Amino acid sequence: MTFLFNSDARRGAVFADVFARELPDVPFTMDAATVDPDAVRYLITWTAPEDLAGYRNLEILFSLGAGVDQFHLTAVPEQVKIVRTIEEGIVRMMQEYVTLAVLALHRNLPGYLAQQRAGDWHDIPQLQAGSRRIGMLGLGQLGQAALDRLKPFGFPLAGWSRSPRRIEGVTCHHGELGLEEMLAASDILVCLLPLTKDTRGFLDADLFAKLPKGAALVHTGRGPQLDHEALVAALDSGHVSAAMIDVTDPEPLPTGHLFWSHPKILLTPHVASVTQPATAARSVIENIRRHRAGLDPVGLVDRSRGY
Amino acid sequence: MTFLFNSDARRGAVFADVFARELPDVPFTMDAATVDPDAVRYLITWTAPEDLAGYRNLEILFSLGAGVDQFHLTAVPEQVKIVRTIEEGIVRMMQEYVTLAVLALHRNLPGYLAQQRAGDWHDIPQLQAGSRRIGMLGLGQLGQAALDRLKPFGFPLAGWSRSPRRIEGVTCHHGELGLEEMLAASDILVCLLPLTKDTRGFLDADLFAKLPKGAALVHTGRGPQLDHEALVAALDSGHVSAAMIDVTDPEPLPTGHLFWSHPKILLTPHVASVTQPATAARSVIENIRRHRAGLDPVGLVDRSRGY
Repeated sequence: MTFLFNSDARRGAVFADVFARELPDVPFTMDAATVDPDAVRYLITWTAPEDLAGYRNLEILFSLGAGVDQFHLTAVPEQVKIVRTIEEGIVRMMQEYVTLAVLALHRNLPGYLAQQRAGDWHDIPQLQAGSRRIGMLGLGQLGQAALDRLKPFGFPLAGWSRSPRRIEGVTCHHGELGLEEMLAASDILVCLLPLTKDTRGFLDADLFAKLPKGAALVHTGRGPQLDHEALVAALDSGHVSAAMIDVTDPEPLPTGHLFWSHPKILLTPHVASVTQPATAARSVIENIRRHRAGLDPVGLVDRSRGY
Repeated sequence: MTFLFNSDARRGAVFADVFARELPDVPFTMDAATVDPDAVRYLITWTAPEDLAGYRNLEILFSLGAGVDQFHLTAVPEQVKIVRTIEEGIVRMMQEYVTLAVLALHRNLPGYLAQQRAGDWHDIPQLQAGSRRIGMLGLGQLGQAALDRLKPFGFPLAGWSRSPRRIEGVTCHHGELGLEEMLAASDILVCLLPLTKDTRGFLDADLFAKLPKGAALVHTGRGPQLDHEALVAALDSGHVSAAMIDVTDPEPLPTGHLFWSHPKILLTPHVASVTQPATAARSVIENIRRHRAGLDPVGLVDRSRGY
């Protein structure tokens, strides 16, 4: 009944510590080469190993992150539960990043930084928060947590998800028609969607055209959701005013790509939110306990939805 | 019993509207040239007019902003109350700006923007919020309101003021010794002090040396509080890691000044917080009501302290 940790040794050491303290009856190893494959019941990894089927008694495949788009879901044996890791640390970092990005766009930081480079001192007309409508694509745990942090600033908040939701203080939309409604009323659009076949290329020219003129974009979902050229075109036409981008396709962004030098883009290298090993280990242990008690783990992936 | 509005016509029109609706018995004018000086009981202005003593029946001189450092306090007749305008709009904008600046420094935005310019994609080691100590210089209404917005992120919060304060969730320091204590424990220092003779040149080489190595600075007080050369020296030595600066001396910042091009400085042109006319008018009216009822206006300046 072994737990196999398949990632970097630094994070592994933190996991090993927490497991030794809080789940001592489950042997913990980072050594895939010497472990008896039949003993492995739990595996945590970022990318699924090619010999996954060799772990014949595997019960749970944990993703080390909030997404599972890096797994080939169909290659994972049917009886194995696939579980995303959404732990306190990753939630907190995403709240910070989205708040930073929304405030940066709300307060015209890209424009002021361009003025700084040009040695130009003058104020840019400023909307008040009550007139700056935020639209959140994706109302999972991360999207909801990010909206929580934006609430005290007084922005009108809306969100869109595949299936209907009710969140206090947030105008919730769903489905095709709901998407159009929300886009038309989003001055700052935040993408926190999971990457699935339905969301690949989601942020495209057609979507940008449905935003009000001058809207801004925060992209903290996954790189392949964004049509990079369509964003540059929308920025250059002025229809989209600015963007803060954390994820690209591919990553790292290639040398010479327009995002590096575009004056209306603030770019960070996929650092919005990173799994924190100590809190992640506790969240994984809690899920093993739930699984052993016959409960579904928190973050259990629905294979038909892809997240 | 006239109210004289001495500033730009756009804001004046908003004031006129609110006064007509909410304080119809007080005549409102923007026309200093034709008003009977003896009728003027209330005056709102950014800089005090030279002929101030000519308004012999003036009861309250309102500053159009949160500061009164632009007034020569000794030139204001003794019987005139001097009142700062700290209204909902200015508070909200300052909350936004300080949160933006603290998150930008916490999440290494200056470093990532430098990497963007250099076409460099790699992550910078990231402290968690619980290990990033915030120190607020100035615990007036703006400082306290800004700390309120930082609280949910989990930063350890401290503050310093001239006289002792108690604020829930904030370690409060005061006086000389308290200042040294707080500086030594501030990873991000925010200056929201009023400009007085005591705070001129407050942010100097000596103060920076008392911060932990790698600390960052948010300056949203007043330009003359900051020794600009000392900041550049501290940034270049690496003792201070980065800064977000909204106020300079002089303003506008002169062409060629190092702040324009310094890679560790995010610069905005004194836009952190701007009095919003609609809410300011209501706050002024409320203060006139208090004054008529024999109460001290909110924001009454203590001439001995200078704020």
